[in-house]
Amino acid sequence: MSEILDKINGPQDLQQLSPAALKQLAEEIRHHITHSVSKNGGHLASNLGAVEVSIAMHYVFNFAKDKLLWDVGHQCYAHKILTGRKEQFEHLRQRDGLSGFPSPAESEYDPFSVGHAGTAVPTAVGMALGAKHKKSDEKIVAFVGDASMVNGTSFEGLNNLNLVKRQLLVVLNDNSMAIDVTQGGIARFLSKVRLTHTYEDIRKTTDNMLEHLPLIGQKMEGAIHNLTKTVRLAVTPNRLFESMNIPYFGPVDGHDISSLIKVFRALKDLNSPAILHVYTKKGKGYSPADDDPTRFHSTGPFEMNGSIEPATRGKYTFTDAFGDAIVDLADKDDKVVAITAAMPDGTGLNNFRKKNPDRYYDVGIAESAAVDIGGGLAKQGMKPVMAIYSTFLQRGFDHMFQEFSLQDLPGVFCIDRSGVVGNDGPTHHGLCDIGYARMLPNFVVAAPANGAEMRAALEFALDCGKPVALRYPRDGVTDEQVELAGCDAPFEMGKSVTVREGSSDIIIAAVGPMVVESLKAAEQLAEEGIDVTVVNARFAKPVDESLVSKIGEGKCIITVEDHGAACGFGSALMERVSQRFATDGFENLGRIVNLAGPDEFIRAGARKVQLDEMGVTAERIAETVRRINAKGNL
Amino acid sequence: MSEILDKINGPQDLQQLSPAALKQLAEEIRHHITHSVSKNGGHLASNLGAVEVSIAMHYVFNFAKDKLLWDVGHQCYAHKILTGRKEQFEHLRQRDGLSGFPSPAESEYDPFSVGHAGTAVPTAVGMALGAKHKKSDEKIVAFVGDASMVNGTSFEGLNNLNLVKRQLLVVLNDNSMAIDVTQGGIARFLSKVRLTHTYEDIRKTTDNMLEHLPLIGQKMEGAIHNLTKTVRLAVTPNRLFESMNIPYFGPVDGHDISSLIKVFRALKDLNSPAILHVYTKKGKGYSPADDDPTRFHSTGPFEMNGSIEPATRGKYTFTDAFGDAIVDLADKDDKVVAITAAMPDGTGLNNFRKKNPDRYYDVGIAESAAVDIGGGLAKQGMKPVMAIYSTFLQRGFDHMFQEFSLQDLPGVFCIDRSGVVGNDGPTHHGLCDIGYARMLPNFVVAAPANGAEMRAALEFALDCGKPVALRYPRDGVTDEQVELAGCDAPFEMGKSVTVREGSSDIIIAAVGPMVVESLKAAEQLAEEGIDVTVVNARFAKPVDESLVSKIGEGKCIITVEDHGAACGFGSALMERVSQRFATDGFENLGRIVNLAGPDEFIRAGARKVQLDEMGVTAERIAETVRRINAKGNL
Repeated sequence: MSEILDKINGPQDLQQLSPAALKQLAEEIRHHITHSVSKNGGHLASNLGAVEVSIAMHYVFNFAKDKLLWDVGHQCYAHKILTGRKEQFEHLRQRDGLSGFPSPAESEYDPFSVGHAGTAVPTAVGMALGAKHKKSDEKIVAFVGDASMVNGTSFEGLNNLNLVKRQLLVVLNDNSMAIDVTQGGIARFLSKVRLTHTYEDIRKTTDNMLEHLPLIGQKMEGAIHNLTKTVRLAVTPNRLFESMNIPYFGPVDGHDISSLIKVFRALKDLNSPAILHVYTKKGKGYSPADDDPTRFHSTGPFEMNGSIEPATRGKYTFTDAFGDAIVDLADKDDKVVAITAAMPDGTGLNNFRKKNPDRYYDVGIAESAAVDIGGGLAKQGMKPVMAIYSTFLQRGFDHMFQEFSLQDLPGVFCIDRSGVVGNDGPTHHGLCDIGYARMLPNFVVAAPANGAEMRAALEFALDCGKPVALRYPRDGVTDEQVELAGCDAPFEMGKSVTVREGSSDIIIAAVGPMVVESLKAAEQLAEEGIDVTVVNARFAKPVDESLVSKIGEGKCIITVEDHGAACGFGSALMERVSQRFATDGFENLGRIVNLAGPDEFIRAGARKVQLDEMGVTAERIAETVRRINAKGNL
Repeated sequence: MSEILDKINGPQDLQQLSPAALKQLAEEIRHHITHSVSKNGGHLASNLGAVEVSIAMHYVFNFAKDKLLWDVGHQCYAHKILTGRKEQFEHLRQRDGLSGFPSPAESEYDPFSVGHAGTAVPTAVGMALGAKHKKSDEKIVAFVGDASMVNGTSFEGLNNLNLVKRQLLVVLNDNSMAIDVTQGGIARFLSKVRLTHTYEDIRKTTDNMLEHLPLIGQKMEGAIHNLTKTVRLAVTPNRLFESMNIPYFGPVDGHDISSLIKVFRALKDLNSPAILHVYTKKGKGYSPADDDPTRFHSTGPFEMNGSIEPATRGKYTFTDAFGDAIVDLADKDDKVVAITAAMPDGTGLNNFRKKNPDRYYDVGIAESAAVDIGGGLAKQGMKPVMAIYSTFLQRGFDHMFQEFSLQDLPGVFCIDRSGVVGNDGPTHHGLCDIGYARMLPNFVVAAPANGAEMRAALEFALDCGKPVALRYPRDGVTDEQVELAGCDAPFEMGKSVTVREGSSDIIIAAVGPMVVESLKAAEQLAEEGIDVTVVNARFAKPVDESLVSKIGEGKCIITVEDHGAACGFGSALMERVSQRFATDGFENLGRIVNLAGPDEFIRAGARKVQLDEMGVTAERIAETVRRINAKGNL
């Protein structure tokens, strides 16, 4: 099945292959990818589309010395297989296996560990400038999808390409899809270009380019100018990139390895930055993904015939609970509008989108604009819900500051994938959201502990008149397994709920999904004669003043959160205790111990394993309580 | 002098004026602005350029109902004068006077309080969508400078203009200047457009537009298409905005009120988003500002003849100290490169730029790209120094996360304007930088206490091999007034310096410029018999473990910082104490009291007054120590 791939141990081995063999290799890699992803999950459709371009780039460039920068990086599987990682590829996205994204720890072929959109072009600019400083003739290539190209960071990078007075090639991989269909004016423009180009046009462009490129010698600028004029068709993205002073080439067929090799060879020695536009097809070569690229953008394990195991999709998640709650609440309040940054499916907005197309906005991979558009809507009296992953909302931090906190505008940030996220690993963890939100005046930071609380929390957030950050994990809700006292009571500003009363001086105060873990720990401890209280904090800001008072009564509070220890809920509670001590002068003063994430990155793996590493699973919480309890100096 | 302006109490009064009177009004407003800014300082050049456009917009639109969104907002002075604030304008940027930026608290004519670049277009998109939801026919206008238009957030907004299926006018105010000359490919393109346009061309464009616009009736799309074709000159920004599917009009003369009024009238009823490109001249009408717009971008008080008082420019600042230190250190190490986001002057890089033009990069108002370009340079072994104001670096938070923290790449963030910034007010305070930097694994967060420490801190930061955030305020250094023990000793990772040994159990641990305030407080207290220790923390991360041990010895530590109490240095120290308690189980446990900013916005005013409000001046620190000392329950 893999007679060619078996012989490829590194990019250098590509040179020995005939055009037909390269074509065959593409098919084998495609099969290897599909097979591995079917077992462990991962990004499928985009990777199937990028196989030929990856082969052609590695055929022409020497990325042991040259630098290849992937944008987002979820399309680097063929690259990984070609650069000595084909055996480990079976263990993609597993604890001790390969990362699903580029990783310098794995290979010298990956300069940056990435996962967020828009960074390939500006980091490539930096690397090109750096190459100039160290007088190296290494080539720099940035590989960017059309969905990432419209991100503000990409644009700022493109606008600064003119800082670079040497080679730098940007490959625009245009498959007309973000995770969903790419949104925005540029996307519409590119799709118009796409529609007006027949396959014949593309062949003509390629031939034209190849005919003219070798002529480009000393008189670079004039030659490029003439060339781009020559290859311009009726509607081309020329004008966009030309306005930015960037020579543009294309579009070319991204599945024709031989042509790609010729084009890359021709562009390799260009002594200025340039853009090459390639057309590819998401899900290419695997019909279930080809038919439904959105479903196979990022997938769990599946059968090779395309069916997905009921077990993996059956769990009712926090995301599902949010999706149901917003549909329900939007039925009752026509001011509710929802905004997503290219993630309708991942954030649970699909049903809302179907029911309320006129109140649903997808802004593409543009978290900054998502927040600001929400700000404008809020100013007009609407109730915007910005549903964005925790790690990506970091892009909107300054916009949360100016457009919501400073204006004191109401709006709800539904922060999915907060805490550790499992197999996507460090680039995708949401371990800073309590910190970045609670630093902003006027912001409220809350977390539902289970599915029932999600609805109550969202209802509260929509009506409290403040900007609210609502965080919840990529995890199943546990409503059926563990009963939480008071979880169906309405949220009240800054009020926690006691879910278990204990007789000892130890109180566990937990945030969101950590409440269930803490309750399990308490039940274990009760059997050992340690009878602790468990509080569902509900709010990380404002913190419940009654918890602060407990410290003034000499109790010990153990805070538990799936957030970094820096700037988290525990930290917020300590700040408030310090303030109250300075003004109220507590006679007695108890201790606070924070259980939260370490000041380091937590590797990919099962979320449960990662939580254990953070010390916030039931077992680990119980251990800490035992140790504190044994000290006896509370 | 102000016979016309005297009669203008609101925008409605403009209607009664003849074209000649409007022209005269522009001159009077210009004089009023120049006069007021000469007394209190402020943004001058950009405001002088925007007078006629502001008059024309207010003449045509009714911004009591219609919405006018300023980008950055530093060019809104004429707007303020026209909207009932001409008397208060004398007290611009003073504690109880007018803000230097738009402010909803001042006037219904200011929808958003702004100060950061790029937000006008996306918030306008949100407001236009909101107007549609509430079925209002109000007009939406976003006024954006060419320097802001190239910001990633603007671009994301432009790319999402197609969400809006109604009127929304973006006015591109093109004066070819950011604070300094605008950088980047788009800027180069616009300046090419500018150079190829004679005044005759512009007149022709305007006439052409006015001739065709009234014909645009029902058949909107076709008409716009024909029109934009008609008004296209040899080189026009058409192609850029057309690629984004946005109808483009212009360029027009931004100082010709009568034409501007006609153009705004014609565009007002356009039932789709559009861009109007106006040419203006920064510093127009006041020759010192016209000759040197960079110096008069943001200025302190000056004489009307243009000379600046020695008193205001004489103080040696932290910024000066940084500027001198980087020049010196770059002489010794050719790997040092500096990156600014359009602020060479404000960040003190002017001398570096002159001495090392090949190691200096200005990326325009693009903080995200500034960080990522720095990441690329660092990856190549260079030592990038990103000199960016604290509040604006919030835009680069996610890039600090991915490109530096996650890669563990060395690089120095020279965070100017940290803490409270004085008269620029809430949009410009830097009260979150310790928090956003210390949440990121691998990051080091340090602060020099005076000018001598600046050099030591920068030298340490360049050589320690980690990403470092170095924060310092917009303030004079106090080297000559107060002698700080040990301030010329090299920085050692996580090591504080004791600047005063006291005999009591109270230790003041201060960050950066707060060390001097704390020392002054200690001297005052010593006279009263309270003998405290004062520590120059130097690092907010990692915190000095010897300070943590003091808490384990039962001491009371009062932390002092010009940062928000949320997530600051005090918070970091408490987190570490909690961790050490949980593992080491201190027998005794002292108290920590944090003196830092409140969870609210601090109004414009003198920095000294603002610091007092935060409770971190010598007097306020002494008060706290007295209160804590009196309690006796340490």
